[in-house]
Amino acid sequence: MAFHQTNLAWATLLDIGGPGPAADGGGRAGLRERLTRALRTAIRDGRLAEGASVPPSRALAEQLGCSRWVVTEAYGQLVAEGYLSARTGSATRVSWSPESDPPRPDPRRALATPAIRYDIAPGLPDLRAFPRRRWAEAVRAVTGSAVHYDLGPPDPAGHGQLRATLAAYLRRSRGADLRTASVSVCAGVTDGLFRTCRTLRAEGITELAVEDPGWGRLRDAATSAGLRVHPVPVDDDGLRVDDLARTPARAVVVGAAHQFPTGTVLSPDRRAGLVRWAREVDGYVIEDDYDAEFRYDHRPVAVMQGMDARRVLLLGSVSKTLSPALGLGWLVAPAALAPALRAANPVAAAPPVLDQLALAAFIDRGWYDAHLRAARRRFRTRRDLLLTTLAGTLPAARVTGPAAGLHVLLHLPPGTDLPATVRAATSHGLRLTPLTAYTSHPTSAPTALVLGYGNLPDADVPAAIRLLRDALR
Amino acid sequence: MAFHQTNLAWATLLDIGGPGPAADGGGRAGLRERLTRALRTAIRDGRLAEGASVPPSRALAEQLGCSRWVVTEAYGQLVAEGYLSARTGSATRVSWSPESDPPRPDPRRALATPAIRYDIAPGLPDLRAFPRRRWAEAVRAVTGSAVHYDLGPPDPAGHGQLRATLAAYLRRSRGADLRTASVSVCAGVTDGLFRTCRTLRAEGITELAVEDPGWGRLRDAATSAGLRVHPVPVDDDGLRVDDLARTPARAVVVGAAHQFPTGTVLSPDRRAGLVRWAREVDGYVIEDDYDAEFRYDHRPVAVMQGMDARRVLLLGSVSKTLSPALGLGWLVAPAALAPALRAANPVAAAPPVLDQLALAAFIDRGWYDAHLRAARRRFRTRRDLLLTTLAGTLPAARVTGPAAGLHVLLHLPPGTDLPATVRAATSHGLRLTPLTAYTSHPTSAPTALVLGYGNLPDADVPAAIRLLRDALR
Repeated sequence: MAFHQTNLAWATLLDIGGPGPAADGGGRAGLRERLTRALRTAIRDGRLAEGASVPPSRALAEQLGCSRWVVTEAYGQLVAEGYLSARTGSATRVSWSPESDPPRPDPRRALATPAIRYDIAPGLPDLRAFPRRRWAEAVRAVTGSAVHYDLGPPDPAGHGQLRATLAAYLRRSRGADLRTASVSVCAGVTDGLFRTCRTLRAEGITELAVEDPGWGRLRDAATSAGLRVHPVPVDDDGLRVDDLARTPARAVVVGAAHQFPTGTVLSPDRRAGLVRWAREVDGYVIEDDYDAEFRYDHRPVAVMQGMDARRVLLLGSVSKTLSPALGLGWLVAPAALAPALRAANPVAAAPPVLDQLALAAFIDRGWYDAHLRAARRRFRTRRDLLLTTLAGTLPAARVTGPAAGLHVLLHLPPGTDLPATVRAATSHGLRLTPLTAYTSHPTSAPTALVLGYGNLPDADVPAAIRLLRDALR
Repeated sequence: MAFHQTNLAWATLLDIGGPGPAADGGGRAGLRERLTRALRTAIRDGRLAEGASVPPSRALAEQLGCSRWVVTEAYGQLVAEGYLSARTGSATRVSWSPESDPPRPDPRRALATPAIRYDIAPGLPDLRAFPRRRWAEAVRAVTGSAVHYDLGPPDPAGHGQLRATLAAYLRRSRGADLRTASVSVCAGVTDGLFRTCRTLRAEGITELAVEDPGWGRLRDAATSAGLRVHPVPVDDDGLRVDDLARTPARAVVVGAAHQFPTGTVLSPDRRAGLVRWAREVDGYVIEDDYDAEFRYDHRPVAVMQGMDARRVLLLGSVSKTLSPALGLGWLVAPAALAPALRAANPVAAAPPVLDQLALAAFIDRGWYDAHLRAARRRFRTRRDLLLTTLAGTLPAARVTGPAAGLHVLLHLPPGTDLPATVRAATSHGLRLTPLTAYTSHPTSAPTALVLGYGNLPDADVPAAIRLLRDALR
């Protein structure tokens, strides 16, 4: 490649580079940086092909009106990076050949702009009611007060402060038994289950039962950790323990307080039966306590974990009470399992320490209880509004599920074309979730929708249900 | 069990309960809650044995001087939880039998109180210099300004805002090529490698090469993801590519800019050779860009990823620049691998969204660059001080490693009893790390210590090195 061609390329390249973000300030250093970048880009683009010589540093410096230092530094950098090679007594040459590249996609994605006006898919709390001011205040306080070694590598089991706060909260509010069990901090129920399943596998337990219908992410977590999953039917008393006993499973995930999505509360007999089963198979019950804080008729049922802290593990999070974006949850496991949990998850990271400390402060200041009280009032009212609206707008439909949680089951007349209903609703801006989305055998499931009202503003309830009625026609 | 015995137990139980944290306020509800808790505890403790009858509600209400409602509610709750069973026309009885429980350990752990005065183990930035005020301000700002659906379930690949900011940063500051690669957000280098290794395994790559010596957590991440690990020696030019080619590995983790712990910068020939190797074996180079921002003699060498964005993956984090407690890192992978990455990690959670947005704001406001400039000045000065102090105090020792990063290698005279030195230092409050901690064959490693100065205050350098000298005697 001839020298004067390269000169032309240079002029162009430097124009393209523009002033740019001079990370090291302007002046010589900035010019050196721009030159380096321009050269690197030209080589990557193929405008400077492998084997091409670059101008002697003195000549290029004259062309560019800069000091020779700028050019020799840029060349040196690119030699260090392997794009150029320099041999004494010979021209510096391009020593790199890119594969051909397609045009670059713009990595800046537009922020999510929901085409959906009313999202009544289940699983969300009221995102508009997130206590922003208090959360920011909690983060600010702990960021100022944390000791400096709290900013070092986090304890994989979680920060001691949050573990203690959670232990007190779970004893007081959920009736957990922490005498022979310990709390660790994780990113949420799914993360906690993933870690648990890896641990079970290391302990020789390869078969896990899950509720059918149930939350699909739990199945994903289990299979992702290498377990085989066995769906077990749920009836009006909750998980059918006799069916469970016929599977090869030695561990089961169960939503005892409020099964998802049926809303069933596991009956006292079944609770006792489940714990007996776990003892008989030398296995574990994994209690998914995902939204038990929301019970509108009486106090939440205490956790099963309290019935046998050696056989029942407890998973919970703030995803349904504060926000899933916080990524903060907990795992209560028998103390005897703690070493195995750590060994099976050697690189599992605890959530960011300042967030852990912020949650501890948020609970310790009473803000979490206050938030839950307000949320219970809000959701109770909204649930009543939803039921009234449904009764008035869709008299043929039937709602099931206790006065609890963030969703109801809406049973529709047999023969209703659910897929068509979901499509019609979506096209009008209403996201719906059929019960079949959570079953292992979609064809055998009742004709029902799972309606989440957590993130549906009260004012939107009538319009959303009218859209649902229209979609059903 | 006789009725009057139970009465005595009740009086005791309610005394034990005390006023307690009445989550639902005082009054009837508070009393109901205390009674429920007291009963539950008595059953768990075995003070009320299985089969024992509890008093009729009217009788107990009289004994306690409360309304009968309080008692029936408490009984009802415990029936729902399976601790009591009630049959029409018969006494309510305890239906639960605990296993015997050892005394409860106190779950509130004391905060870490380092017995170590001087920690010169490598791997930490200056925790005292964490920009607390600006970080808290960034969190406060984004907590106020985030749109409400940002508080919903996080995009597993990371928030678009941070991905765009990181893409711009990595192009500008590290020379990354993002035309055919995409950035995702993870919890750090270890987390990013774990996800990558799970992906490689799903793609049929089961053998991974790592540098020897190298950072043990990377090996843990790989084996934890189910890969077999092959250590490959490092010499003065970095990873030995010819040795690599003799392993069955089809992927390799390499610290190209500043190998840990030797400090070697991968030579241009080796960089080119590594990329050729990856093409030949149809494999990948995984670049661990863990502390490349800290180069004190000239600009950091650009990332290898820019040489072939289809064959080189790039891992980085803010763990060495801001704090490992933040749990924020990135993974740059070929766009073609993105679907496989997601499929192989179906339940991997992105870091908390507000932290992601805070880091984006922190970078976009120029605070990250400012922090790095200040940190470079601080670490350059500290490194000079360390070298001067070592030269004066330990003239027989030799330091290697470029003017970069957060650690140096200190070579000691052959025959030095390193284990005894480490023990002696520890007993005097100085934590030391021998090079052998990072090698696969400890016996063949040079007699050297890895001295981290990131988190060692300048004022402590002389005292720490005096302790080291004393320990060597």
